[in-house]
Amino acid sequence: MAGKTAKSAMAMPVDPQVVRRLIRQGRHQGQTAGLAPGRLQANLVVLPASRALDFMRYCQRNPKPCPLVGVTDTGDPFFRTLGADIDLRTDLPAYNIYRDGRLVESRSCLIELWQDDFVAFALGCSFTFERALMAAGMPLDHIEANRTVAMYRTSIETRPAGPFAGGMVVSMRPIDDDRVADAIDISKRYPLAHGEPIHVGDPDAIGIVDLDAPDWGDPPRIPIGRTPVFWACGVTPQNAIRQARPPICITHKPEHMLITDVDEFAETPFAPSTSC
Amino acid sequence: MAGKTAKSAMAMPVDPQVVRRLIRQGRHQGQTAGLAPGRLQANLVVLPASRALDFMRYCQRNPKPCPLVGVTDTGDPFFRTLGADIDLRTDLPAYNIYRDGRLVESRSCLIELWQDDFVAFALGCSFTFERALMAAGMPLDHIEANRTVAMYRTSIETRPAGPFAGGMVVSMRPIDDDRVADAIDISKRYPLAHGEPIHVGDPDAIGIVDLDAPDWGDPPRIPIGRTPVFWACGVTPQNAIRQARPPICITHKPEHMLITDVDEFAETPFAPSTSC
Repeated sequence: MAGKTAKSAMAMPVDPQVVRRLIRQGRHQGQTAGLAPGRLQANLVVLPASRALDFMRYCQRNPKPCPLVGVTDTGDPFFRTLGADIDLRTDLPAYNIYRDGRLVESRSCLIELWQDDFVAFALGCSFTFERALMAAGMPLDHIEANRTVAMYRTSIETRPAGPFAGGMVVSMRPIDDDRVADAIDISKRYPLAHGEPIHVGDPDAIGIVDLDAPDWGDPPRIPIGRTPVFWACGVTPQNAIRQARPPICITHKPEHMLITDVDEFAETPFAPSTSC
Repeated sequence: MAGKTAKSAMAMPVDPQVVRRLIRQGRHQGQTAGLAPGRLQANLVVLPASRALDFMRYCQRNPKPCPLVGVTDTGDPFFRTLGADIDLRTDLPAYNIYRDGRLVESRSCLIELWQDDFVAFALGCSFTFERALMAAGMPLDHIEANRTVAMYRTSIETRPAGPFAGGMVVSMRPIDDDRVADAIDISKRYPLAHGEPIHVGDPDAIGIVDLDAPDWGDPPRIPIGRTPVFWACGVTPQNAIRQARPPICITHKPEHMLITDVDEFAETPFAPSTSC
């Protein structure tokens, strides 16, 4: 899949509106890494309005794993603050459907499932700070090797909100020992993309027993001279949703993100086309 | 009032829990500037749950005037993420009560008015960046002269959410011409306290006709060699509440803020005592 995606990305235009149109038309179905470079990509969570206030409180209380960058009006399938004409029912390549907290299917379109009481949330993702680290000369092994970043459950509890709770999930990237301070400084600049690391160095300290056995993603390679650095991860809310068991919840399929018009390094997450 | 407050502040302890206890007991009834130095102070908005999701969306869409730092569970009068034992019904010196969008009275206690469906929001305020500017050697005239900062309605529209909408309100501080760039850099570090300015220099450009006639606060003094610098202001949501006309809404009385346990320069707005 990674190879196919890389090839199709070569031919993809850089305009986010054009990319979304291709996705909407089913002409791009793969992952979104590298598409519309420079634009903020986001995790998607869709919930019924009855669960929306609690979930939004969960994001406010856990901004590092759940940096909220956009919320729709109830029943409105458009992310109006994130770009022109973003229809979240069709503009992501793939979606996961959860019922009562269990993943039941994946789909490429939400038109048939859409409900008038749905509220959609966009949460910042790690792509932003990963691009900043690479731009600063820090190679990221999982990207160079076309693998998925290693992700782990931790012993760090999130702050609960209503039924949403559970352990924080982190992603780990090995950073050259003498660049760890730089990696912290750089990622700290992007609070909408998880901000500075949650922990540096010792996996045991945050309840990770075996670095070679991630809970999601590929086993990492950590050569001598690199330190494992742990960032809060956007898989955390999926964990919380599993616990909360809402009757229905929809997320993006991992790595098949929402592409916005927002400058990925912007101070606040708004498309240039939106007012204020 | 300012003189009296300054006097009582002299004798006030620095521990935020002790300060809140004195307020709760009615032993401090004045404004809160200068109390519990180093701790985040916040604007308060209380709304029925039926309006809470829209108001929270309004804050998400307008983070510069409405930087959300805390939200209570529905019916819970405690800000559990902002400190130990913060009872928002008693721990602010004074409250304004709005009915159908109109200010009807001020009170020093909310116990009798409390409803099981209330949700309370804490929004960051300008005290944080003002202290940072002063620490960097930028005198602020309104503070030195014991006056209230000048605030203005502008022609900048906020991004609406449900019934919440309206023009952005800004506060203005004259900054030495050669320090304006520093003031921008410093305030930018505090996105939970309105972040970098909305505008520098020309009041006309944001719809302010007469700098000498602010809509709130005292007329400013702008000596030769200083530039007017405009920051998004926490009065903006009061404007939006007036437009939305909820059956009931409660705010802090201006300058009588919520004092939290949070380090005012913290990256995320959580008290050390709270987990995660």
